[in-house]
Amino acid sequence: MEEHRWTSRPGELLRAEEGFRLDAVDPGSHPGFGGDKVAGKRELARRREVLGDLQERLFAASRAGEAKGAVLLVLQAMDTAGKGGIVRHVVGGVDPQGVELAAFKAPTPEERAEDFLWRIEKRLPQPGFIGVFDRSHYEDVLIGRVRGLADAAEIERRYGAIVEFERRVAASGVRIVKVMLHISRDEQKQRLAERLERPDKHWKYDPGDIDERMRWDDYMAAYQLVIERTSAPLAPWYVVPADSKWYARLAVQELLIDALQDIDPQWPKADFDVEAEKRRLAAS
Amino acid sequence: MEEHRWTSRPGELLRAEEGFRLDAVDPGSHPGFGGDKVAGKRELARRREVLGDLQERLFAASRAGEAKGAVLLVLQAMDTAGKGGIVRHVVGGVDPQGVELAAFKAPTPEERAEDFLWRIEKRLPQPGFIGVFDRSHYEDVLIGRVRGLADAAEIERRYGAIVEFERRVAASGVRIVKVMLHISRDEQKQRLAERLERPDKHWKYDPGDIDERMRWDDYMAAYQLVIERTSAPLAPWYVVPADSKWYARLAVQELLIDALQDIDPQWPKADFDVEAEKRRLAAS
Repeated sequence: MEEHRWTSRPGELLRAEEGFRLDAVDPGSHPGFGGDKVAGKRELARRREVLGDLQERLFAASRAGEAKGAVLLVLQAMDTAGKGGIVRHVVGGVDPQGVELAAFKAPTPEERAEDFLWRIEKRLPQPGFIGVFDRSHYEDVLIGRVRGLADAAEIERRYGAIVEFERRVAASGVRIVKVMLHISRDEQKQRLAERLERPDKHWKYDPGDIDERMRWDDYMAAYQLVIERTSAPLAPWYVVPADSKWYARLAVQELLIDALQDIDPQWPKADFDVEAEKRRLAAS
Repeated sequence: MEEHRWTSRPGELLRAEEGFRLDAVDPGSHPGFGGDKVAGKRELARRREVLGDLQERLFAASRAGEAKGAVLLVLQAMDTAGKGGIVRHVVGGVDPQGVELAAFKAPTPEERAEDFLWRIEKRLPQPGFIGVFDRSHYEDVLIGRVRGLADAAEIERRYGAIVEFERRVAASGVRIVKVMLHISRDEQKQRLAERLERPDKHWKYDPGDIDERMRWDDYMAAYQLVIERTSAPLAPWYVVPADSKWYARLAVQELLIDALQDIDPQWPKADFDVEAEKRRLAAS
């Protein structure tokens, strides 16, 4: 029995197309999924098998030198939107041996001395891997813009540099999936309050989070610009409503499945004589 | 209700002590665990929560600069013994953000030009992380010895260099857990046969595996020597019977839990005024 409740492919519903307006997306909505939280969690578990199987095929094909594909999941969001939960519950569902995770913090002085894409390029996934960027080069045109860390001309240059960079990465065989986890201002308030209530969550709280929160509208405007300026056929942006954690996880899992199905990795053919090896093994 | 079936701590039962004999270990045994496969799998799922909680505390404490501890799990074994399954089912149970995985293949020409520990040192886990070595510097005294890749004097030097190296690593706050997954020659034959039967497993098969298999006794002698020469109070070897995959996974999970409980990481104290932040949040 088919259990899924998707009425349309989330990739099609969530991809930012020409004329996209961030302020028209409801962070509390569940586009394309007809089920509730219980159904969503069941679906997440069920589809994890599919994702895991595709990931193993991708890995196997690359080890045999038969495929050069990789996937790069770029995660961007306001604080508390659930990047960590995506890594834990979606990415954590596949074999760690096939994942390359890179968390980008504020750049070090050494990194700052280089072009902003320098540290990014070094962490691109190798063939056969699913790479995950927890924050990314997009910080340089998000906080970079909102906080005026670079002047307007430099921000402008960066949009173009990103488009060129991603075009080159895609041409090398990397499927790029860019995700903005979109929460509401109210939901963020609740999540920050929870971090303040629970001593085991204090370590996740940073007073600076409130400073960024105070600039909510500036950030939304910066995201709108990023999406307009850097969406491309081979490097699309997906805006995923994230007030419901279960929906966001389910949707991102489907985006990864789509990317892998697009690569369509096959189990590599044996490069040895199977029957001869059976005889060798039997004699050993 | 306590569900567990351990009659003794696996760490105590499986640690190679003075006078240890590898040939006295039955790869099909389940030391200390009274349950069957079903009970073992249930226990693995139940204790995963404990491991995950400890890992998160370790990560949190290090992020707050309050602890410098890390764990290093070294996995060594004959082919098919289940290293990959440990990574997938035990390590894969914790948050990927807290794990640093390093798979060591045959050294590259660049690596070969350096001391054998050069590439190892670069992959040691940072504070707050669980590092996992899928193969390690021990290959240099295992295949290195069996295949005569280095002369006897050099192998001898390496035992001492490893002991010194691990002493230094342990002193820096890294709990070292060295595991030999111990399968029987018969079990390996069955697992290799399965890889040959199933086209989706062919990519895991390497005709060279049979060549190594033909030297089984040499490898067991090399492991015996490694364990004698490199066991140390702060870098003990654990020999884990691995003919039952479920037992090996369960036992290694317990070894990781022991190492983390030994560090005893605590949730860091807030370095900000919680009540003041609640007021700032409420006003935002």
